[in-house]
Amino acid sequence: MTTNQLISEIKKKQSFLCIGLDVDLNKIPQHLLKEEDPIFAFNKAIIDATHHLCVAYKPNTAFYEAYGLKGWKALEKTIRYINKNHPEIFTIADAKRGDIGNTSTMYAKAFFEDLAFDSVTVAPYMGKDSVEPFLAFEDKHTILLALTSNEGAFDFQTKTVDGKELYKQVLETSKTWKNSKNLMYVVGATKAEYLADIRNIIPDSFLLVPGVGAQGGNLQEVCKYGMNAQVGLLINSSRGIIYASKNEDFAQVAVTKALELQREMQVILSK
Amino acid sequence: MTTNQLISEIKKKQSFLCIGLDVDLNKIPQHLLKEEDPIFAFNKAIIDATHHLCVAYKPNTAFYEAYGLKGWKALEKTIRYINKNHPEIFTIADAKRGDIGNTSTMYAKAFFEDLAFDSVTVAPYMGKDSVEPFLAFEDKHTILLALTSNEGAFDFQTKTVDGKELYKQVLETSKTWKNSKNLMYVVGATKAEYLADIRNIIPDSFLLVPGVGAQGGNLQEVCKYGMNAQVGLLINSSRGIIYASKNEDFAQVAVTKALELQREMQVILSK
Repeated sequence: MTTNQLISEIKKKQSFLCIGLDVDLNKIPQHLLKEEDPIFAFNKAIIDATHHLCVAYKPNTAFYEAYGLKGWKALEKTIRYINKNHPEIFTIADAKRGDIGNTSTMYAKAFFEDLAFDSVTVAPYMGKDSVEPFLAFEDKHTILLALTSNEGAFDFQTKTVDGKELYKQVLETSKTWKNSKNLMYVVGATKAEYLADIRNIIPDSFLLVPGVGAQGGNLQEVCKYGMNAQVGLLINSSRGIIYASKNEDFAQVAVTKALELQREMQVILSK
Repeated sequence: MTTNQLISEIKKKQSFLCIGLDVDLNKIPQHLLKEEDPIFAFNKAIIDATHHLCVAYKPNTAFYEAYGLKGWKALEKTIRYINKNHPEIFTIADAKRGDIGNTSTMYAKAFFEDLAFDSVTVAPYMGKDSVEPFLAFEDKHTILLALTSNEGAFDFQTKTVDGKELYKQVLETSKTWKNSKNLMYVVGATKAEYLADIRNIIPDSFLLVPGVGAQGGNLQEVCKYGMNAQVGLLINSSRGIIYASKNEDFAQVAVTKALELQREMQVILSK
């Protein structure tokens, strides 16, 4: 999917919501456990109920890998289901991968070709030749970790490197990489005040913003500092939507929660 | 496996060799492609032939994920085969994972419980709460990326942070984390001269050293600067051993290459 197609979907749906599909068998409604594939059954119900309210789905691969082969199979079924039934939806493999050159190419193939995701999240620590193999894929997007929403972000990301915080060095440096037009960035919502500075460095890039809701980030604040002329934001919510109810009504309650966010977004977009 | 058990195996086998199982279907002998599971068939042949010469095997997960479900299945069969037939061998999931707290716990479960690896490689960018969930597992080891062997290592890792290179900050900071005794570190062999400084910071930790051979690192140099009283080194070789021959004799040629390294190690250990 091209960036322009994503922008067009955002305008059409009046939403820049991304729903995180982080399926934990201890947290899903327990009646689903009798299904042949409870993970996929849960995802399918969430997708069927919410696809008109969001522009992106983001499975975090950790939750699938934790269940071994059956988890990987559920991930495969989920992405194929989205691509078949809702090809207009932007898909993010939240995998936080990164390795040396030829190995990163293998990861890129895994997520872009085998699973046919539109994008994958990648860690920057290993530098240029660990990220460029992902950027080489046409109409695919590499979402680089810049400033994450966890406490540990302050261990290294905000430390000063040659007069500038490390996450800003990551932003600046990544702009010089080949096919950097295919970059998006992860910026945590719990640090909304950092977004103004970030926008000075990467005015046009899309930002994937986790941490709204459960982790305490504020949508209004994020939009105030982070939105650009083409919106440029994907706001992720996982637990706040998919685990809003643990009962048989989980999908309907997910709709209610997603709708709340979509309506808030619609108001912001109409300003 | 405890660190003491690993040290005891090193002394017994007179080897600190780790063999990287990075299986690329384009590079393995083509007669294996007619096998039901060519990846596992290749690994089994390499393991059967070389297990007496090495103390560790390290599959890089990228190579398995790139083949989707059948790749994940081959990874599962490989680790189960090693654990069943050679439980004395230290196993490393070279996965370079890392995510926020509860998600890192899911990754830790995937590799330590479901797949039963002894260790996993982890990226440090997200800081303390992304690594501690791995460290919480008893008798399991978290191998933190410090200084990698690729060109991109110079993009961020060697940049100066508060008066000290980032990779040194990572080493120093990681020592303060809970259960830091379960840490090992990735340090690339192409930067052997850095090892003296690294040993000043982490004198006792094990280092996983990729980049000997194919990437130009020198075993003698690495040992000169990096070895400690308990050896403290795992030297990885992947392509130099497993792809030394592309013919039906690949496993025998792998033995020859592994034996060369083991003998060189034996000489170093006897000094």
